[in-house]
Amino acid sequence: MAFLVKKFGGTSVGTIDRIKHVAKTLCAARKAGDDIVVVVSAMSGETNKLVAMAREVMPGTVDVRELDVLLATGEQVTIALLSMALKELGCDARSYTGAQVKVLTDSSHSKARIVSIDNEPIMSDIAAGRIVVVAGFQGVDEGGNITTLGRGGSDTSAVALAAALKADECQIYTDVDGVYTTDPRVESRARRLDRITFEEMLEMASLGSKVLQIRAVEFAGKYNVPLRVLSSFKPGQGTLITYDDEENEMEQALVSGIAFNRDEAQVTVSGVADKPGIAYAILGPIAELNIEVDVILQNIGENGLTDFTFTVHRDDYAKVMAFLSERKDDFGADSIIGNDRIVKLSIVGVGMRSHAGIASKMFQALSEAGINLRMITTSEIKISVVIDENYLELGVRALHEKFELAEEDSA
Amino acid sequence: MAFLVKKFGGTSVGTIDRIKHVAKTLCAARKAGDDIVVVVSAMSGETNKLVAMAREVMPGTVDVRELDVLLATGEQVTIALLSMALKELGCDARSYTGAQVKVLTDSSHSKARIVSIDNEPIMSDIAAGRIVVVAGFQGVDEGGNITTLGRGGSDTSAVALAAALKADECQIYTDVDGVYTTDPRVESRARRLDRITFEEMLEMASLGSKVLQIRAVEFAGKYNVPLRVLSSFKPGQGTLITYDDEENEMEQALVSGIAFNRDEAQVTVSGVADKPGIAYAILGPIAELNIEVDVILQNIGENGLTDFTFTVHRDDYAKVMAFLSERKDDFGADSIIGNDRIVKLSIVGVGMRSHAGIASKMFQALSEAGINLRMITTSEIKISVVIDENYLELGVRALHEKFELAEEDSA
Repeated sequence: MAFLVKKFGGTSVGTIDRIKHVAKTLCAARKAGDDIVVVVSAMSGETNKLVAMAREVMPGTVDVRELDVLLATGEQVTIALLSMALKELGCDARSYTGAQVKVLTDSSHSKARIVSIDNEPIMSDIAAGRIVVVAGFQGVDEGGNITTLGRGGSDTSAVALAAALKADECQIYTDVDGVYTTDPRVESRARRLDRITFEEMLEMASLGSKVLQIRAVEFAGKYNVPLRVLSSFKPGQGTLITYDDEENEMEQALVSGIAFNRDEAQVTVSGVADKPGIAYAILGPIAELNIEVDVILQNIGENGLTDFTFTVHRDDYAKVMAFLSERKDDFGADSIIGNDRIVKLSIVGVGMRSHAGIASKMFQALSEAGINLRMITTSEIKISVVIDENYLELGVRALHEKFELAEEDSA
Repeated sequence: MAFLVKKFGGTSVGTIDRIKHVAKTLCAARKAGDDIVVVVSAMSGETNKLVAMAREVMPGTVDVRELDVLLATGEQVTIALLSMALKELGCDARSYTGAQVKVLTDSSHSKARIVSIDNEPIMSDIAAGRIVVVAGFQGVDEGGNITTLGRGGSDTSAVALAAALKADECQIYTDVDGVYTTDPRVESRARRLDRITFEEMLEMASLGSKVLQIRAVEFAGKYNVPLRVLSSFKPGQGTLITYDDEENEMEQALVSGIAFNRDEAQVTVSGVADKPGIAYAILGPIAELNIEVDVILQNIGENGLTDFTFTVHRDDYAKVMAFLSERKDDFGADSIIGNDRIVKLSIVGVGMRSHAGIASKMFQALSEAGINLRMITTSEIKISVVIDENYLELGVRALHEKFELAEEDSA
């Protein structure tokens, strides 16, 4: 018996049959004694359909206030249908839009941030034994205008509700059954993690394990809401994301997972003056182009000159190269060197905070596999290298092996 | 320059192109100086689509609270798209759901009645020069639950808004360009009426001229909101529905229109005792079967016996006949006689209140056309006859001619 906030994404409620299936799961949990608040997204495809309609009406810059009014209908359809499906199974339920439970947000339409939630109606329904069904992704500002949290915001809605309601756990149902030590499509022996810390999850997520919205993980970490990733299609315990407070259990794992990102491209501005302001002079205009920079690296210079290297998404590579090549004289650079055939490979683990030698163990594994390291960066709980894209799979498997992450052979 | 509430139904906003067309009309009116509140329905077909989804989830009795949550999304989509279309044309606009302008209703889900409306946000937008776009058909009860007014309720929303905002006129845009003296498909010389009274409109509507929702007309009459029916596709003045306060102008028309109803069937319970309670004994059980009775007629009896006649919709005819035939001994009736090949034909006009001889003029016209009258009933402003269905078109044309309702020949 626990008080749970469960979130089902668009795929999990994508058809009437799937909505009925989710209702069945929820009813069983309710009958087993759990108190349940469900957060749902729009049925898959609905949001895209609504956006397409908006674009047809306003081909230029769409009005964000009205876009939010339009998009909010997607989740409203789902909450009504899921509540009906629950009632049809004899499980009492009640739906709420974001506005109805006063998911108060700021007024940044299409990317609003949650300020507070009104617990009162939800808790009185829970006390009455009802399953409460809340529309994810949406809220309302001080002026009563409908807002949305941006794509994937339903995860954030669920975590915010779990925090406000002081639920025991926030369970995110997805199409994967948990967080893995690495991508099982690259390493078939990848193992589902029973637990992972918020920080590790953030590093894993930003590095390409697209299981959860980063904002939701940050939010869960901030309010210390235990977060669990589960499959909506197959039963199982999933992966629990919490703080590293049970020292014994967590300390054993030095490295929790191997993350990677295939979509990177590297740009080096070579032979620039090693003086204050040069990084800003180069990256300022890049930011203004609305291009996100990932890894940034500058080594100690010689003779007052240095090389400044960073990575961007491959889609932005040509634009960045053209832009910098045109202005290289402005920075006094020798040349602009680029490579869009590289990938980023990382190991993530809170264990490395208290253990030395993890980096050298990583470099040893990659060296043994004959992989050349083009760039190296480190943070508290992550070490990343940039390598030639051809060596990605080899590198993942070598690290997975070296850090003994693989599924144990069944006895 | 006037303060207008304009309502556009599902067909008028049925596609993105039609929404753009409506926006263009509204912008032109705004630029000409009118202050405008627009009420819109769901895009045509949307409500049916949502109802079908609900039926798939709850094949039995659908949960009305959740059905209202679901259906309310239909109008919410339209208000967002129309507001965008207005902004795209450079006309400032803002959308509101029923809940956002606190269209407070009772809690009768799917057939709620409006109690009050919050003018404040609308009037401040109007003062700022904006076109205000409000979702029709929906409201919110005291508990914050979403309610709907039932099918066609957008007309009622528009009239209620016009009353609350003290607008100069409530304009209902439909696919016809006004109220006609009779159905132009039956009498090609039928003429669009410039004006008609609320009472006449009510009699016309209930008799089969399905232009406006009866409830909306009642509401407009009660709060004295001038109501205008216009075409959303072709320009024109439409038909204004008001009280008969401009005596001179209105008095000339003895009869405003010829209404008819093809879907009637007649049932006679013959030879029953002419005593108190007999009408209730017969119609009570019919009402319990949820069957609506239209004309009811009982003549003076002879020898303590009388014939009791009423009409029902043809779809209910077989059911009523079977029901009564089975129980005729309960009423002590001789026999149950029925006819489902009859129609009702009526003349409507406030003029008949102050003029004698209208009825005999009607009967003369029908007699001249060789039409036999099976039943006759009268009210203050309406005389109805039941005739054989084969004579309907002939009867309509004869009356249209007799009361000089036809389009005047162009000079």
